[in-house]
Amino acid sequence: MSANENRRIVLASRPEGEPKPEHFRLEKTAIPTPKDGEVLLRNLWMSLDPYMRGRMSAAKSYAKPVEIGEPMVAGTVSEVVKSNRPEYVPGDIVFSYTGWMDYAVSNGSDLRKLDPKQAPVQTALGVLGMPGMTAYLGMRNIGMPKEGETVVVAAASGPVGSFVGQYAKLKGCRVVGIAGGADKCKYLLDELGFDAAIDHRDPEMPKKLTAACPKGIDVYFENVGGKVFDAVFPLLNQFARVPVCGIIAHYNDVTPPPGPDRTGMLLGGILRRSLTMRGFIVWDFAAQSGDFYREAGQWLREGRIKYREDIVTGLENAPEAFMGLLKGKNFGKLLVKIA
Amino acid sequence: MSANENRRIVLASRPEGEPKPEHFRLEKTAIPTPKDGEVLLRNLWMSLDPYMRGRMSAAKSYAKPVEIGEPMVAGTVSEVVKSNRPEYVPGDIVFSYTGWMDYAVSNGSDLRKLDPKQAPVQTALGVLGMPGMTAYLGMRNIGMPKEGETVVVAAASGPVGSFVGQYAKLKGCRVVGIAGGADKCKYLLDELGFDAAIDHRDPEMPKKLTAACPKGIDVYFENVGGKVFDAVFPLLNQFARVPVCGIIAHYNDVTPPPGPDRTGMLLGGILRRSLTMRGFIVWDFAAQSGDFYREAGQWLREGRIKYREDIVTGLENAPEAFMGLLKGKNFGKLLVKIA
Repeated sequence: MSANENRRIVLASRPEGEPKPEHFRLEKTAIPTPKDGEVLLRNLWMSLDPYMRGRMSAAKSYAKPVEIGEPMVAGTVSEVVKSNRPEYVPGDIVFSYTGWMDYAVSNGSDLRKLDPKQAPVQTALGVLGMPGMTAYLGMRNIGMPKEGETVVVAAASGPVGSFVGQYAKLKGCRVVGIAGGADKCKYLLDELGFDAAIDHRDPEMPKKLTAACPKGIDVYFENVGGKVFDAVFPLLNQFARVPVCGIIAHYNDVTPPPGPDRTGMLLGGILRRSLTMRGFIVWDFAAQSGDFYREAGQWLREGRIKYREDIVTGLENAPEAFMGLLKGKNFGKLLVKIA
Repeated sequence: MSANENRRIVLASRPEGEPKPEHFRLEKTAIPTPKDGEVLLRNLWMSLDPYMRGRMSAAKSYAKPVEIGEPMVAGTVSEVVKSNRPEYVPGDIVFSYTGWMDYAVSNGSDLRKLDPKQAPVQTALGVLGMPGMTAYLGMRNIGMPKEGETVVVAAASGPVGSFVGQYAKLKGCRVVGIAGGADKCKYLLDELGFDAAIDHRDPEMPKKLTAACPKGIDVYFENVGGKVFDAVFPLLNQFARVPVCGIIAHYNDVTPPPGPDRTGMLLGGILRRSLTMRGFIVWDFAAQSGDFYREAGQWLREGRIKYREDIVTGLENAPEAFMGLLKGKNFGKLLVKIA
């Protein structure tokens, strides 16, 4: 990288189905100059998250899509390198949504200062950031696990799923995690203390899930969809709650799968078992973010919540890492170390 | 009917799909004799409701199925003819779940005394009974309509739907009712004061629903399913609520309809628009029944809630009337006048 070079990765075209390298383009521009009231940020860490697949599509959603030719969005942890704002000095570490790039300017309104003494700064992208908050607020407001209940979470070794399961353990629940592969399952049992772990690649997954949930399922934190949802749904108990947080198994769907159409069966299950299915994004409960930072920060310091990172080095490697994320190749919170 | 004859209609066999006359059997027995602590009831009115289709099936549900050879269940309004209990005297009018029969005995634990001066006694089966309470509690706890919001309800001229729509009008909402045929639609507009009425038999129903909901849909009270749900779902706004109360369009389904399978699309919609879909039965909110009786009773006396009855005479005509109910042939609360 030359002295005055700012790399950024833009959306080259919209994928139909699986994103491929040609849907991304690395561009080089000059490092921007902060104007009055602005700061210049150098990105240190960038988060890769499943929601970014949604932003690559033009379909109507809770957030505007990324435009063709515009940088991909991302939460980032950055160092302030120049500041024209009194509240920031060079060397400050901040969280922001700058995107897939080396440098960015900000007017300060979207920045949150981080204290490196409290926790490693990149946790602001994971366990103490949007993924952790998503798990915490979804469970607190929708899942509402009660002592003795059975909680199932898929993508359970990821930053959201692992927090969901640990949250439920703290509330006294039986926790069953679903993950891809023996290593991840071992991690759920040995490191996170889940009660059972099931490999979704196992052809007997539905049968094993049934065996792992002898009293049925009271909370299913949905971040996967697909065959995991299919296996979970018949096991949901009367009054079960399903926070719908993501459906990564469907993000690359081009057309709906063949029939039969189970919409009526789904409605019938919701009706007969008084189920609650509720979609959310973390910002739906933004008013409670202070509670999250306080409580999760304390849990982390006390070692009651653990986390795992999967670090990729170099902005240029972000597209490949992101494509792998959609296939479950990461193990833990996927981060790009930029500088 | 001879002097000591008690007719009752039992489940002769379980229907696959649509119930037919052969699934019911009229039997004659002796009028039962009340023992110590029991009362003898003569049924005056019997309610016919869609939920009874579910009880005819052996499938797991919130209530036990009716056994083959046992009388069909129903809410009834009865006259006490003999009483071995101090709190009842002959001539008292009571609500109970005796079933499809002329006479029944009760130990009193399942009876609720009715005051004929307050309202016509058969309203205990409709606007002031389970259907009205279902509408009231579903809207109060799940639909939660706010002033200015758009509320859509199907089967809107029925006892649940008409209460749902009128409840929403009382809360200041725009109310769109869906019903089968011009007469029912006219009733929604002229008698109940709905803002729009749409005939679900109209091939342009989805287009007309879209036009009737220029600001989208905030609450959809689901008691139908099928093509009405399909038309409603794309119109649901961010944070819309869907109390799932019934899916009459599916009760006779033998196999799910052909594909594509839209489960993933449904989950995607729930996720992207932060929708809440929640199934319930009226007893989920039993603790609030006192509020219903008080508030709905007052609304009825003040003429703020209207209702319509569809009366069939003779217990022997109940099976045909019930089969018609599942096809939407009734217009208003379907009642059987027994004596």
